[in-house]
Order: sequence, then C-alpha cells, then structure tokens
Amino acid sequence: MKQLKIAVPDEGMRQRLGGVEPSVEVFVWRPDSDPDPNCEVDLAVLPYMVGPEYLTNLNGRRVQVVQSQMLGYDRVGEFLPAGMTYCNAVGVHESSTGELALGLILACQRGIAVFRDHQRDRRWKRHRTPGLAGSRVLVVGAGGVGQQVAARLAGFDVELSMVARTVRTSPYGQVRSMADIWDELGRADVVVLAVPLTEETRGLADEKFLGAMRDNALLVNVSRGPVVDTDALVREVTTGRIRAALDVVDPEPLPSEHPLWRCGGVLITPHVGGETGSMTGAADRLVLDQIHRLAQGKPPAHIVFAP
Amino acid sequence: MKQLKIAVPDEGMRQRLGGVEPSVEVFVWRPDSDPDPNCEVDLAVLPYMVGPEYLTNLNGRRVQVVQSQMLGYDRVGEFLPAGMTYCNAVGVHESSTGELALGLILACQRGIAVFRDHQRDRRWKRHRTPGLAGSRVLVVGAGGVGQQVAARLAGFDVELSMVARTVRTSPYGQVRSMADIWDELGRADVVVLAVPLTEETRGLADEKFLGAMRDNALLVNVSRGPVVDTDALVREVTTGRIRAALDVVDPEPLPSEHPLWRCGGVLITPHVGGETGSMTGAADRLVLDQIHRLAQGKPPAHIVFAP
Repeated sequence: MKQLKIAVPDEGMRQRLGGVEPSVEVFVWRPDSDPDPNCEVDLAVLPYMVGPEYLTNLNGRRVQVVQSQMLGYDRVGEFLPAGMTYCNAVGVHESSTGELALGLILACQRGIAVFRDHQRDRRWKRHRTPGLAGSRVLVVGAGGVGQQVAARLAGFDVELSMVARTVRTSPYGQVRSMADIWDELGRADVVVLAVPLTEETRGLADEKFLGAMRDNALLVNVSRGPVVDTDALVREVTTGRIRAALDVVDPEPLPSEHPLWRCGGVLITPHVGGETGSMTGAADRLVLDQIHRLAQGKPPAHIVFAP
Repeated sequence: MKQLKIAVPDEGMRQRLGGVEPSVEVFVWRPDSDPDPNCEVDLAVLPYMVGPEYLTNLNGRRVQVVQSQMLGYDRVGEFLPAGMTYCNAVGVHESSTGELALGLILACQRGIAVFRDHQRDRRWKRHRTPGLAGSRVLVVGAGGVGQQVAARLAGFDVELSMVARTVRTSPYGQVRSMADIWDELGRADVVVLAVPLTEETRGLADEKFLGAMRDNALLVNVSRGPVVDTDALVREVTTGRIRAALDVVDPEPLPSEHPLWRCGGVLITPHVGGETGSMTGAADRLVLDQIHRLAQGKPPAHIVFAP
C-alpha cells in the first residue's frame, strides 16, 4: 500500500491526526514560509482564513489535493495551480455560522448591542425593542449556512421564507426563486444573506435591493463582504432607514477610519462565523475523512475544482 | 346582564379593548394618580413594571380582580388588600423572555458583547470564542420561561438538562429534582435561571452555588435579581472565574456606581425580558380572555391569590 503524504498547516493538527493509520505520514508544511517538502503531497491542508492569492505559494509544488479550511472559494479558480484538485471545508463552519446569525439577529432585535453601549456608560435605560417572535425573516441562500440559520429560527415563532438560485423543497419549507426576492424584501423584518460569493452574488445587496427593504428592517450578512455594496449600505444606514448586523464586510479588515464603524443601527463582528471552539474538531474530522477516502483509493469529498 | 366595569391603566389599552362587548365598560384608571372611580370594579389591570407596594393604592377601593401585567408575584401577598383576587400575566412574557435568554447566551458565547466594545473603538480584532454548539446547558426552573428557553435551545445542538422543584417529564426531556443541581452545576457550560422569586429561590445562586459552577461557565439570569446573591457574584466574576449575563439584578435600577457595571465578563440588560413589540398584543389577549370569562360568570384564569 502506498504511503500517503499529508501536509497540515500547524503542529496542533499534526499531533491530533498523527498516527491515524500506519500508511499515512502527516507532517507540518506552511507553503508560504516552509521549504518545499521534496515529495509528492497527496493532500495539503491550507491554513484557516487565507485569501485565494495564498494559492500562488503552491506554484511549482507537487500537490495532488488542496484542502481549504474555508467554505467560500471565490476567485480560487484564478489562483489554483494547474493539475491540482481543490476541496472546500463543507461541514466545518455552517453550524457555527448559523449560530452566529441568530446571535446577531437577537442582539439587534432585542437591543442587546445598544444596552451593551449603555452598560459601558453605566446607564440603566429601558426601551422597548421589536423582538423576533412574530417577525417575518427572509433567508437568501438555501445551502449549508442558509439551512443552519433556518433550523435555528424554527424555535423562534417567525414566519420564514427562503429564496435561492434553485427552487426546491427544504426541511424548512419551500425555497422560492431568486426572481421572487423583490416581493419578499418588501415584507421581511429581517433579511439574512447566506449565499456564497460568486460573480452572480457580488454586489447582490445593492442600492435597489436595500431600497426594497422595509423601513427599520435588519440586514444580516454572514456570507462574504462583497455580497453587499458597502457604499450603498452606508447611505441607507446613515439615514436610519434600515439597520445592519455584519460579520463580513468589504473591505476586510475594516480600516479604523471607515464610516461603517460608527453608523447608528449597525453591529459589526470581525468575520468570526466559523471561529468557535468546535471548529478544531470539525476541521480534524473533515481532514480525517479525506485521508480515509484517499487511503481507500477514492476521490476526496467536496471537490470544487478538479484538473 | 350585569354591566362589567374594567379598569385599564392607559388610553392605548382602552382604545384597543373598548367596544369588545356591549355589556362591558372599559375605562382608564391609574390607581396611584386617578380619583376613585366610585363604582365596583370587576377587573383592574395594573400598569406594567410596578412593584408589589403599588397595590397599596388599591386600599379602600372596590376592586374584585386585580390583573397584573407581570409574571412574578413576589411579596404580592404582603400588599394585596383583603377581599381582592390577584391574577398574574401568564402567557404574556414567557416567549419573549426565552428569546432574550438565547440572545444573552449567544452574545456571550459568541463574543458579540466584546466585539461591540471593539466596534466602539473601531477595532477589527478577531478571537476564537467557545460557541454554543456542543455545550451543556442547565436550565433551572421548568415553568413557562424555562420551557420557552428549552424550546429555543432545541435547534442549537446542546446537551440540555433541567432541574425544578417538581420532578417530571417535559417535552424537552426529564426534569430532575433541585437536589440534583450540584451534579449538574459542575458539568454545565451555561446555567440559566428561570425560576420565580419566592422565599425558596431568594439567594439561590449564592457563594456555594456559584462556586460549584465550572471555570469559565456562564450564568444567565432572566428571572428576578434577588435569585442571585449579587455580592457573591461580583466576587466570582471579578476574578474572571465565571461569567454572567443578567437581565435582572439586585438592586434595580442598578445604580451607576455599582461595581457590577464594569466587571469583566458581565453583560447587563435593563430588565427587558418581556419588553418587546409583541407584549402589547399578548397583554390585550390576556385581558380580553379575562373579560370573556367574567362575562360568562366564570372565575378569571391565572389566580395567584383569592380571598
């Protein structure tokens, strides 16, 4: 049996995966700083939170399969060296991103963000907030993240609607066509963006989209920053007409002088949708599963690009 | 048929309920500031968020049934004038309080409160947080609020346990005895207090209780402030050993010089568990239901004290 060579980006993962099977060698290799391993690498796991440009570090290397620790793969096709297979991190981040979406929705609809500001000023100041129960929530995108958002919303007494590229029936109800989004936008109290960033979704939440949202509605972005037209959003939230909770923004990191930081009615978290204690175990399980597949001579799972 | 006399505390409620039945007269009466209505009042609805001392305003008045807009009734027995029936607001606040509990849990377990502080300082600073998925959550109290918390937790991939005065089976699993709380406290990542304030629960979360919690565990209080020994909590959170999210505190309102405001790892909201846009409709429905019961010659629902 051929010995599999598995490159992982840090010593922690190597220790957790090492010794998984006698026929597998797991070693640490960070393509941007470590020398060439001088061997055929069957699977190279990339560090978490690197942009697509990072793939240029693989030019001239002998890597069969590139395993990302991220779900999004915008512009990966531009940078992936020819001959390599690229897999994304399906199953690692969807649950925690859905969880964060609920946290952001509740922090805004229950005033927790504003009460936190009052806490810093030591002010006990009650005010009535919209709440979530009885609201209409539109989830845009019905893939892994959208479904995890929908699953969690099920307990909150909301009227849920979902739109996506592909019309279908989901465990959370009918998924309608993106063509229906204009109807839905005008009725939703909360709009959650849960689409991948693609050429179709770049700038999806533009001036027209935001303008179609109800007064005082909340836009939640847990997908990728460029899905929203930031300048258009700044204009809409500055007037106070709509509100926003953003785990992802464009640009990232958001520069300290950017107007979005201080817009009223905006809550910002720094792209931490997948950044929880359960990520490590989930990423390990994904890589282990890929190793088992390769050891059995099967193709890896979750192939996004193949040569 | 006897004409029913229904006193409500504000003009808004009078307008929403007025004309419900020809045999019912609904009028505005605030017992603390308005003159005696000079009639037998069949049902007097109290203002929201008044303490039990407010009931002294009913001394010498002819009121049959007092309808509170609150769920808690601590010390009502001390102040309720003899001969009056007292009903609490079952069904009005449980759902929104359960909703807030989830908001507080997620704001802490996903770092949203800390990221909000960073936002105020315009700092993009990522850090990994525990997350909620995979955690063990203990809900103390299995009444209306406890069940609403449990219902919402169902979608979040947690290991739920509940303890209450009465051992029973609930839709969310077995409710264990309060005697088992010490086992459970040592294993829970999140402890939610959802008990009414009674002589049994006053000071329940004292030094021993807090000391039995795991390192870095989160205490969530959506019940009543005096269920927690505030001084003991300040000591535990000051060392950073445990964290807390408090919608209710003792004393309320929390004075600006109180140390709790600035304790690290503490999130405070100003007793807004029931304070959402859906409260008005829910309170109206409760009062309407009571009117219908009285009109049919039935006793009111949700009697806490009867003469």
